[in-house]
Amino acid sequence: MSATTRREDPFKPAARVAGQRQDVWSVVNEAAAASPVQPIVNMGQGFFGYNPPKFVLDAAKDAMDKVECNQYSPTKGRPRLKKALADAYSPFFGREINPETEVTITTGANEGMLSAFMAFVEEGDEVIVFEPFFDQYISNIEMPGGKVVYVPMHPPKEGATKTTSAGEWTLNMEEFEKAITPRTRMVVVNSPHNPIGKVFSREELQTIGDICVKHNIIILSDEVYDRLYYVPFTRMATLSPEIAKLTLTVGSGGKVFYATGWRVGWLIGPEHLVKYVSAAHTRICYSSVSPLQEAMAIGFEQADAHNFWDESKKEMKGKMDKFNAIWDELGLPYSDPEGGYFVLVNMSKVQLPEDYNFPPHVAERPRDFKLCWFLIMELGVAAIPPTEFFTDKNAHIVEDWLRFAVCKNDDVLETAQERLRGLKKYIRS
Amino acid sequence: MSATTRREDPFKPAARVAGQRQDVWSVVNEAAAASPVQPIVNMGQGFFGYNPPKFVLDAAKDAMDKVECNQYSPTKGRPRLKKALADAYSPFFGREINPETEVTITTGANEGMLSAFMAFVEEGDEVIVFEPFFDQYISNIEMPGGKVVYVPMHPPKEGATKTTSAGEWTLNMEEFEKAITPRTRMVVVNSPHNPIGKVFSREELQTIGDICVKHNIIILSDEVYDRLYYVPFTRMATLSPEIAKLTLTVGSGGKVFYATGWRVGWLIGPEHLVKYVSAAHTRICYSSVSPLQEAMAIGFEQADAHNFWDESKKEMKGKMDKFNAIWDELGLPYSDPEGGYFVLVNMSKVQLPEDYNFPPHVAERPRDFKLCWFLIMELGVAAIPPTEFFTDKNAHIVEDWLRFAVCKNDDVLETAQERLRGLKKYIRS
Repeated sequence: MSATTRREDPFKPAARVAGQRQDVWSVVNEAAAASPVQPIVNMGQGFFGYNPPKFVLDAAKDAMDKVECNQYSPTKGRPRLKKALADAYSPFFGREINPETEVTITTGANEGMLSAFMAFVEEGDEVIVFEPFFDQYISNIEMPGGKVVYVPMHPPKEGATKTTSAGEWTLNMEEFEKAITPRTRMVVVNSPHNPIGKVFSREELQTIGDICVKHNIIILSDEVYDRLYYVPFTRMATLSPEIAKLTLTVGSGGKVFYATGWRVGWLIGPEHLVKYVSAAHTRICYSSVSPLQEAMAIGFEQADAHNFWDESKKEMKGKMDKFNAIWDELGLPYSDPEGGYFVLVNMSKVQLPEDYNFPPHVAERPRDFKLCWFLIMELGVAAIPPTEFFTDKNAHIVEDWLRFAVCKNDDVLETAQERLRGLKKYIRS
Repeated sequence: MSATTRREDPFKPAARVAGQRQDVWSVVNEAAAASPVQPIVNMGQGFFGYNPPKFVLDAAKDAMDKVECNQYSPTKGRPRLKKALADAYSPFFGREINPETEVTITTGANEGMLSAFMAFVEEGDEVIVFEPFFDQYISNIEMPGGKVVYVPMHPPKEGATKTTSAGEWTLNMEEFEKAITPRTRMVVVNSPHNPIGKVFSREELQTIGDICVKHNIIILSDEVYDRLYYVPFTRMATLSPEIAKLTLTVGSGGKVFYATGWRVGWLIGPEHLVKYVSAAHTRICYSSVSPLQEAMAIGFEQADAHNFWDESKKEMKGKMDKFNAIWDELGLPYSDPEGGYFVLVNMSKVQLPEDYNFPPHVAERPRDFKLCWFLIMELGVAAIPPTEFFTDKNAHIVEDWLRFAVCKNDDVLETAQERLRGLKKYIRS
């Protein structure tokens, strides 16, 4: 199309926003709103069903009484939060993190990752992503003109017949290395993993990291669930100085302090990487929300005194085990998470009524969308169909699974269990 | 450079962030920190020296006690804020704004404008910007691959010798129309204008709008100072149905409620434009800060009952007139603002000492940077050098001017005046 005709349709969107397939969140939320069972128990999106801890909420309210906390923060973030993060993470990283040059605050981890891609990816550069993936990665890579190269993770062989550990999902390291080309610039690693709940082992991360060093690839290590692990957890940036030199670690205040709506995230890494992430962030959002940065600084400063990290992990693991008892009761296998707050449940034994009337936008999608719709409409429980986190080619891997978020109040989890008992009559024995 | 060599420098940044000339905010802030006169009176960046009104702060604190207000908001914004905005702006727009389809919430006006460019600009498309411009426009246009085409505004002929009205800055409409090419997709219009303080007249806006209709160009109307005008103010989208059809109006909660650190902005416009802005915003930030959206919703709901809009305008105009008395006293001409909280002052009469020792990064910049440095170091008052808002080619237009922000407490304005009296001995009579 010539430039002239293009302008004759002044409202033609750019290609990057023109795709209008309904995203999974909208499909599930609209179905939830239309369900005859109300109120729905929403275990779909990973928002918390409860408030941030009181010491963080109080800090936010106090911050709002201070003039400077309501005005622009520096583009790289409030000094107090950068220092609190450097203090909190230096022991984990086994070195002194410089708060001024090695930490940058972003508008949630999401915009932080976009900033990293904007900083290093140019038209036609490739970024490797493991399937399944958090769906926002894809548009974040494509915005600066990057091409996503997918490497599938493989589910446990017996995942459809018995409960297995999320750690049994595996990455074939040869497949990973084969996916690298001269255009590969970055790889995204996510541990603890959403939606699988796998915590990558030290050996797995070492192999991935060494391959990246060999090929000079920047590692974007998405560790937003870093406070919720139920097996030993290793941070990519700690494995060797060479790996550290090319690793950007992503964190999320919303995830660690139960405040997904606060939009405060950060990246930690060597100055030669972080300075360009900061530059991109400045061009995207200018600065991030000021009073809630201050609140999270105080959250990190006071967390140990409140024994918050231990309590937080123990509480979430308790919710996870408590909720998953329903699957044992129903005889449905699940992938027992090693971290985070999502559980994948295998529903291959669930027989959907043959004459069930699915709307066209669900009927045309894989079986997990039908399972999702059925649970919402018949039982009043919402979950997420995980094929959304795969390419079409590999979606079959998870078409029998659903993802449930357990970061909800105990009474909600109990109501969900009670409702899910309604599945019994559809389960093949 | 081949793809292979490129990867051998894995830390090479993308071109969009590689430029590292120090931005004006950093130059001024670093100079302010280094000044022997402390504390500095900072009238540089346009942050407020006081808090948001109590009814908005209270609303924010209350919102933080509500679970749903601390979690993800819908990507297009919290329904209560969209409705409050539609209710507040429908009377100004002379039509019913649909809160669900014609309003979208963004992470500050800045990310809102980036979202608009991401929605409609593709590689090589042109966007027209009038000089002087708010500096973030440029990177926001360049991020999606757009090319900025500049059209200069012309200062009052007698601006260097006597105080004139900001309204006397003019745009030559022929120059504007000549700048349009087959690749022109959008134009940015800013009224009330930063840094000039001009409120474009109805006639000027009508001419600009009609030219855009004739050439099918989307208008991004930056109206973030829309509550602070001291002469009649016209909104671009109200001028004709044809103009409304291609106009996106940008607003800022941070500007109207004295909370530049809250990062809540919005775009209002027809559904066929807004839906793509929303799509871009979802890919950039996913959603915006939740509790502060709720607070601003309540702010709009309650503002009239508190007579906030009238008081706010009256108060700012009072600060402006009070502060500008110092220029009358010193005999320095200024451009009397018709809106907003910035004033441009002409310092051609100020003689800088010939042997004054400017650091290299200031010495190499136009005279306004030297004036700025001199005021910070000698008097302890920070202002912004406005050549930063011009291209190099046209920077000479404002090399004798400085921009002062008056959104500060009265005692700060008084201290500034007292210090600025120190300029007397450098003023040529």
